[in-house]
Amino acid sequence: MVRRDIMALKCDLQYGKGEAAYKLTRVGVKGVRKPVIVHREGLGKKLNNSLNCSIDIFVDLPGSQKGSHMSRNVEVLNEVVLQSMSEPVTGIEDMAADMCKRLLVHHEYAQTADVKIVAEYFRHNVTPLGKDTFETYGLLGGAHIERDGVLLKKIGVKVIGMTACPCGQQTVTEMLGYEGDLPVMTHNQRNVCKLVLECREGIDVEADDLIDLVEDSFSSPTYELLKRPDEGQVIINAHNKTKFVEDVVRGVLKRVVEKYKDLPDDVYVDVTSESEESIHKHNAFAQREGTLGELRQEND
Amino acid sequence: MVRRDIMALKCDLQYGKGEAAYKLTRVGVKGVRKPVIVHREGLGKKLNNSLNCSIDIFVDLPGSQKGSHMSRNVEVLNEVVLQSMSEPVTGIEDMAADMCKRLLVHHEYAQTADVKIVAEYFRHNVTPLGKDTFETYGLLGGAHIERDGVLLKKIGVKVIGMTACPCGQQTVTEMLGYEGDLPVMTHNQRNVCKLVLECREGIDVEADDLIDLVEDSFSSPTYELLKRPDEGQVIINAHNKTKFVEDVVRGVLKRVVEKYKDLPDDVYVDVTSESEESIHKHNAFAQREGTLGELRQEND
Amino acid sequence: MVRRDIMALKCDLQYGKGEAAYKLTRVGVKGVRKPVIVHREGLGKKLNNSLNCSIDIFVDLPGSQKGSHMSRNVEVLNEVVLQSMSEPVTGIEDMAADMCKRLLVHHEYAQTADVKIVAEYFRHNVTPLGKDTFETYGLLGGAHIERDGVLLKKIGVKVIGMTACPCGQQTVTEMLGYEGDLPVMTHNQRNVCKLVLECREGIDVEADDLIDLVEDSFSSPTYELLKRPDEGQVIINAHNKTKFVEDVVRGVLKRVVEKYKDLPDDVYVDVTSESEESIHKHNAFAQREGTLGELRQEND
Amino acid sequence: MVRRDIMALKCDLQYGKGEAAYKLTRVGVKGVRKPVIVHREGLGKKLNNSLNCSIDIFVDLPGSQKGSHMSRNVEVLNEVVLQSMSEPVTGIEDMAADMCKRLLVHHEYAQTADVKIVAEYFRHNVTPLGKDTFETYGLLGGAHIERDGVLLKKIGVKVIGMTACPCGQQTVTEMLGYEGDLPVMTHNQRNVCKLVLECREGIDVEADDLIDLVEDSFSSPTYELLKRPDEGQVIINAHNKTKFVEDVVRGVLKRVVEKYKDLPDDVYVDVTSESEESIHKHNAFAQREGTLGELRQEND
Repeated sequence: MVRRDIMALKCDLQYGKGEAAYKLTRVGVKGVRKPVIVHREGLGKKLNNSLNCSIDIFVDLPGSQKGSHMSRNVEVLNEVVLQSMSEPVTGIEDMAADMCKRLLVHHEYAQTADVKIVAEYFRHNVTPLGKDTFETYGLLGGAHIERDGVLLKKIGVKVIGMTACPCGQQTVTEMLGYEGDLPVMTHNQRNVCKLVLECREGIDVEADDLIDLVEDSFSSPTYELLKRPDEGQVIINAHNKTKFVEDVVRGVLKRVVEKYKDLPDDVYVDVTSESEESIHKHNAFAQREGTLGELRQEND
Repeated sequence: MVRRDIMALKCDLQYGKGEAAYKLTRVGVKGVRKPVIVHREGLGKKLNNSLNCSIDIFVDLPGSQKGSHMSRNVEVLNEVVLQSMSEPVTGIEDMAADMCKRLLVHHEYAQTADVKIVAEYFRHNVTPLGKDTFETYGLLGGAHIERDGVLLKKIGVKVIGMTACPCGQQTVTEMLGYEGDLPVMTHNQRNVCKLVLECREGIDVEADDLIDLVEDSFSSPTYELLKRPDEGQVIINAHNKTKFVEDVVRGVLKRVVEKYKDLPDDVYVDVTSESEESIHKHNAFAQREGTLGELRQEND
Repeated sequence: MVRRDIMALKCDLQYGKGEAAYKLTRVGVKGVRKPVIVHREGLGKKLNNSLNCSIDIFVDLPGSQKGSHMSRNVEVLNEVVLQSMSEPVTGIEDMAADMCKRLLVHHEYAQTADVKIVAEYFRHNVTPLGKDTFETYGLLGGAHIERDGVLLKKIGVKVIGMTACPCGQQTVTEMLGYEGDLPVMTHNQRNVCKLVLECREGIDVEADDLIDLVEDSFSSPTYELLKRPDEGQVIINAHNKTKFVEDVVRGVLKRVVEKYKDLPDDVYVDVTSESEESIHKHNAFAQREGTLGELRQEND
Repeated sequence: MVRRDIMALKCDLQYGKGEAAYKLTRVGVKGVRKPVIVHREGLGKKLNNSLNCSIDIFVDLPGSQKGSHMSRNVEVLNEVVLQSMSEPVTGIEDMAADMCKRLLVHHEYAQTADVKIVAEYFRHNVTPLGKDTFETYGLLGGAHIERDGVLLKKIGVKVIGMTACPCGQQTVTEMLGYEGDLPVMTHNQRNVCKLVLECREGIDVEADDLIDLVEDSFSSPTYELLKRPDEGQVIINAHNKTKFVEDVVRGVLKRVVEKYKDLPDDVYVDVTSESEESIHKHNAFAQREGTLGELRQEND
């Protein structure tokens, strides 16, 4: 069926003229799945982790060119993954940064490159009463490069925890006229908190530390396995530490500012907290986006 | 470009011989979106509702035939929807039953037809302290026909509510040594409960009644809008009526048996309750499938 | 159980001091479901549509205050929906703008408000050979207000269509050594294209026009019902009009620039096109974000 | 805060009397995430794989008992995972079977147990022109046990491939009056095919073989990376091997019957094929459920 030497294909439509001469901000592939070997000191006390990653890879495109060579994006990914076999990557954000640099080499016409990586990450944890558990988290990595040399990387986490509502608790206390010293019932629910730091190259942040910061900011962390006394203790702890979604975000911000005293002012911080409200069918949400510098000034 | 009279197309590959002569259980289209006008006495006290439906439409296929004529499935849907303009359907399960009958006419080779319809449904509700709200529910309709005359239809609902855990409450009571008469704190969370009845033609069940049965079986219904006293009352109500997912399912079963004394024993009941646990990252789940006859014997 | 006059509740924790004195960018509710009556000249030639909306409603929060009064967000929504009963809203973006203004009144401490609305929208369409169909689209509306008076609204659409790959077609033509004048086979697939315009108040854009612009930019629109000749014609049309995701985005941009000659330069345009590639397990993606002014200069 | 020896907790509400004395078909946990080490001869030529699993674990519940001890479900899971550290499991279906047996020990009141496991699986593949790629698949495992000794396990795969429509191709050929020997254009799209076998203990089926059977039944497999000649070859291959969703299902059935001559007649086979149609906004779907014995008789 194939009537020509396929190696002689000269067609390269991508370099031709497109539908119209508009620049494109981002062109590439979304949702490429790939296992990656990550080595990280302290990453759950394990040296090498195989992370199942979902990867988006984009470059920009000048107005003069019809198409981007998308297969090069997957080639860059495969280069980096192949290299990780012998030399495990130090984090998905470092892998994203490495890919961004290579993308500018492979796409000689591109001025910027963007990579986003999402992975599931499992880590040991300990219940209030000391039992070992193994919990699931999300890792959020990324990088953005410009040909003039700017490279920004993102390192973040997605953590599921529990929030107990302070307003509900106070309202019920008043309604019942309760004057004792026990924490009173309130509505509580599953909360999803994301913390992402964006910083220049050369700055290293441990995902495990970010997870710890977030878990400390919930009313309580959550656990795969809770025998009865541990279940009771989680409930008591949460009701002694009630949190709005606003409190979760600010608690994370406070811990970030305290923990990362040495990071420069231009590190960009994005924190979101979303509660799957038990008393509503919709969710409650809070977010803060801003630089470390701004945050340092606000809460003196 | 078109060089022939397209009306003269003789190609009908579907009637030809297929890959292999195996019968197929179900062939058709999934996820067709369509607004449908439904008229129902008592349906939220409104006479006509436009429901946005997602519809799956299947017939079986004999081993001798390569393909099913899938466009006929959409034609049958459009016939029924067109007719609903002048004569609103009495429920999505009746529409599914109507479609099943027509499918056997349009697909002369089919022995069975299946239709599933999912729709979002809004309904008025009242908070504990009497404020009006407007809540979202899911309607689950369907029908299955066999050429020998059997027609079964499904009518069901998906309802979001709240469960407060009885075990956590008792554990905390013991741990705190509390001996007062107030309900003690526990973990609570969003629960999704589905109730589906499958019955022969001629039996009518109101979706609104099913929603009421389910909402009565939660620790508390949930509401889009709760000012502070109502929020407190919902919390108090839920803690006075703690429920496992098992309790939610059984509460629904009990109410179904009580409410539908006149329905025959062969009505099939499927109830599921799934809690998005606030203390775990995973969900708790309970289900009962069985006939009304079985249920009537079990809880005498 | 309730021991006090609930109307006398004085608790208003939200006004208290929070976890830390950081400002929050966005606090509110996500995913509130609500049917809204929309009146729009030319909206599918129908005067009034009931749209099932999913709504996010946020305001910012000063560092001095613990919490935002989230129930006020739903109250604002209900005010607007109630008013739409007697006076249908002219579009979900206008509804979002209206809500933003009211949010600043209800949240006296807020400096900004944000509303996002997503709705499913059905519209009549015509196949290549003239048959009527009824297709599903997404409407994307929103607004952002600042207390100093700036109000920006977003109006957009999500449209599903078909792309056939020009590169695959040319490669196959070469590989087969085909020298005839028929369009040659290539891979083709489902494409999801989003077009969103952000503009100041007082500028009106019809969602129906945006849908038309996007459908013209695909290799072909797609249809719920295609009898055989129409199916053939859609395939032929698509292969005569092959499009990369890049071409879809640029085709939309070109049509936006041509259609909206009277809109000011500061209108912000965001176009994305994502193909669920038939030859890959991942998707292809292209995006352009920029002002109308920039676009007008680029493609002269 | 804790005022009693928590080890002395006597509360065991689960053994108490429930909401009503109905038996429950299935009670347990859904969506527990856990990495599992799997060892399998021939599994991608790799000895040990770490699979990220999502696990559902249920037992039934007698009418006399209020609740099931759900934490025992997670304990059983952890036992099996711990053991897999030293002795890797031979497949997720064997792990499910092992868990089912242990569940009946831990839940002395249960008569049945059900486990479902879904995992992402990566495997080497080769493009038409011989380039190595690495593709993502889904593994579907499960088991069901009854206390009287019956144990059934499920082993299945979810595979993404490509289908090109035979009807569209023939219609276009007629419409264009084409009389040459090249395969003519048609619509093609992403297809998701699931194949699941349910069999008694002692029967072993390799997931890799199931993946191969399914990939052979598409118009073409799909690949993460296709340089131009490979892209062309995939397109040509698909157009020379057009398939309805019906054909995909029957192709899989034929290959299952041929491959598994030694499996008993009572093995239950479930095959589904769903195409994300490029010419429609909805999907096409086909399914066959039946025993190997039935299949063996049908296509003689």
